Amino acid sequence: MALIVQKFGGTSVADADRIRSVARRVVATREAGNDVVVCVSAMAGETDKLVGLARELGGDQPTPREYDVLVSTGEQVTIALLTMAIRQLGQRASSFTGAQMGMRTDASHMRARIESIDTEGLRAELDAGGVAVIAGFQGIDEAGNITTLGRGGSDTSAVAVACALKADVCEIYSDVDGVYTADPRWVPSARKLEKISYEEMLEMASLGAKVLQIRSVKFAMRYGLPLHVRSSFDDSEGTWVTREEEVMERLVVSGVTYNLDESKIRVRGVKDQPGIAASVFTPLSAAGIVVDVIIQNLSSDGSTDLTFTVPKADYARALEISSETGARVGAEGVEGDEDIAKVSIVGLGMRDHAGVATKMFNVLADERINIQLINTSEIKISVVIERKYAELAVRALHAAFVPAGAAEPREE
Amino acid sequence: MALIVQKFGGTSVADADRIRSVARRVVATREAGNDVVVCVSAMAGETDKLVGLARELGGDQPTPREYDVLVSTGEQVTIALLTMAIRQLGQRASSFTGAQMGMRTDASHMRARIESIDTEGLRAELDAGGVAVIAGFQGIDEAGNITTLGRGGSDTSAVAVACALKADVCEIYSDVDGVYTADPRWVPSARKLEKISYEEMLEMASLGAKVLQIRSVKFAMRYGLPLHVRSSFDDSEGTWVTREEEVMERLVVSGVTYNLDESKIRVRGVKDQPGIAASVFTPLSAAGIVVDVIIQNLSSDGSTDLTFTVPKADYARALEISSETGARVGAEGVEGDEDIAKVSIVGLGMRDHAGVATKMFNVLADERINIQLINTSEIKISVVIERKYAELAVRALHAAFVPAGAAEPREE
Repeated sequence: MALIVQKFGGTSVADADRIRSVARRVVATREAGNDVVVCVSAMAGETDKLVGLARELGGDQPTPREYDVLVSTGEQVTIALLTMAIRQLGQRASSFTGAQMGMRTDASHMRARIESIDTEGLRAELDAGGVAVIAGFQGIDEAGNITTLGRGGSDTSAVAVACALKADVCEIYSDVDGVYTADPRWVPSARKLEKISYEEMLEMASLGAKVLQIRSVKFAMRYGLPLHVRSSFDDSEGTWVTREEEVMERLVVSGVTYNLDESKIRVRGVKDQPGIAASVFTPLSAAGIVVDVIIQNLSSDGSTDLTFTVPKADYARALEISSETGARVGAEGVEGDEDIAKVSIVGLGMRDHAGVATKMFNVLADERINIQLINTSEIKISVVIERKYAELAVRALHAAFVPAGAAEPREE
Repeated sequence: MALIVQKFGGTSVADADRIRSVARRVVATREAGNDVVVCVSAMAGETDKLVGLARELGGDQPTPREYDVLVSTGEQVTIALLTMAIRQLGQRASSFTGAQMGMRTDASHMRARIESIDTEGLRAELDAGGVAVIAGFQGIDEAGNITTLGRGGSDTSAVAVACALKADVCEIYSDVDGVYTADPRWVPSARKLEKISYEEMLEMASLGAKVLQIRSVKFAMRYGLPLHVRSSFDDSEGTWVTREEEVMERLVVSGVTYNLDESKIRVRGVKDQPGIAASVFTPLSAAGIVVDVIIQNLSSDGSTDLTFTVPKADYARALEISSETGARVGAEGVEGDEDIAKVSIVGLGMRDHAGVATKMFNVLADERINIQLINTSEIKISVVIERKYAELAVRALHAAFVPAGAAEPREE
């Protein structure tokens, strides 16, 4: 008998029929002899509806405290409905809001961080043979204010509760049935991975693969909690995210990912002297803009170029801020480019294999794709290229690096 | 400077425009120098939507605990949106869920009773110059479970908080602009009362006038809290519900009301012996059926007839139960009649005026309306008549008892 935390996203609980289907799965898991905690998001569309009302009445920046009071109702609706549906199947169950499960966070509304979880009530429900149905995404601060965890918070709630309860596994159900070696829409030969390490999953998530939220993977990694990413529409095995040593099939490259949401800014011809990078990036971080790839290269004339990427959503503001900075530090010019893509290969095996980067650059060169920026970590190499070559690059890299593999062929 | 509790019903907060309009009224009241607490219902239609989902997933009798978790989200949405709208007007405000304002109730889900209110947080908001926006209808029990107060609970929440804060007045806003001497749809000459006593309001509410919930009037009466029933669509004065001694214009009859939601059952020819009434009514109350008017009359042959009214919604079940009882106690027969109306006159002045009942019976006799049952209290006389005469009876009684009065003529 295992203790299983199951997390269902918004599309999995989008209407009454789907909620009933989730209830059946939960009850089946319980009847197989497991203790079950279920964590749910708001019904698909509900949060958007609430956010729309908040904009209408609260303006562009609704009061964060009230925003959290508002949007947290979405999950509260789902826990009540799912609990009713489970009980209709004859299985004991009780719902828990963030406050009721003692999901204590800091006081940062709309992006709160979990501080502690009081598992007493959840344990009591499990001990009584019941299923605990918990609201994802929400918590309370020390003063009793309702908080929310921000984007992807429900994954984080589920994983945090699973860690607190020392669960055997946290199953993440959505309309995606696992982690693929590449986006199957671009690479038909992409295959579902049986297992992947936390480290690889983290890199892939940060590179734009939207299967799991980074925060939840970090949480799971810290506690060594196995995650199982799977489909809410069928019973097939998904992808296990687990410790490196449990990943048998050690691929040099586990996945090829891409990100089209970045843009590039170049501050050209600044004097190469200490403090230049700081003077360029300090105003950006003060404006809350997250800078990703950064490249600095020295010219023969002693001046330097600083190039970096920022999310497309922040592009206009970042360009404006950088232009002001450029003028102040005497740069020759500041230019931007939104027409870029970041393409990456990720794999634990890279550590032990020399020449992976060289091979990557050769594959792209063979396709006549020019590399604008390069960024590497121990288990990842990212390149920034022109947007129009993104799909070609992903296909070519997948063909070059990912073996056809033993996994069953994927049905389109 | 006064402390004012304002309560807005579902139609007053039905959409973003109406919520903005409520916000303007709240801010105007605050800017006039008053402390303001606002109590709101769910946006019109929201509760019905949630109840529909509960039926779909929880069956005919959804788990009461989960039902309360579900429907309480309706008010939570409204407090957040209204607070945002108030803040958009530059006025400080904070929302309070039932839990956050310490609205402690017993554990009876779906019909909880208020036990205590912790006003500390509300006072702190008022002391800081803010408006406290509270969720009606909801509370928490000792164990932290979410409870709801049942039908009309928001009126009760508002009045209870007003009493706890020793407010100067509780204003009840809705699409009705006051208490009338009769239903204006039936009696064009009906006029809005300036003031009415708690006792009269209680009788009128229990007789079917749906302006205020009985529970909230009882609460206000116990604490001597003035209520002001007024329209959320204009600024006109409504009707004050207050202590008897403050009602200047002491009418013999303050209002003529009717109720079409009752039905009649007659248990005929039972032996007149001790315990007969108990054996008839015990099974009904065990089934949760509320019996209103009860008449027992003795025939010359020593047998007796028991006639009583029950809500139309319970008619079928009540008739079935009474038929079984009738068979058991040897009644000659049990008959039912849904085609009835209860028409009543209410007024404090009745106490001091003999002959009011006689006059009422004469007025009805002049219109050739047969009286089936009569029920009286100190300040009310009710008669049960055939349904088709209800409108005629109300008009005739209004003409006979309610003086044209000094109040301004009402615009249709």
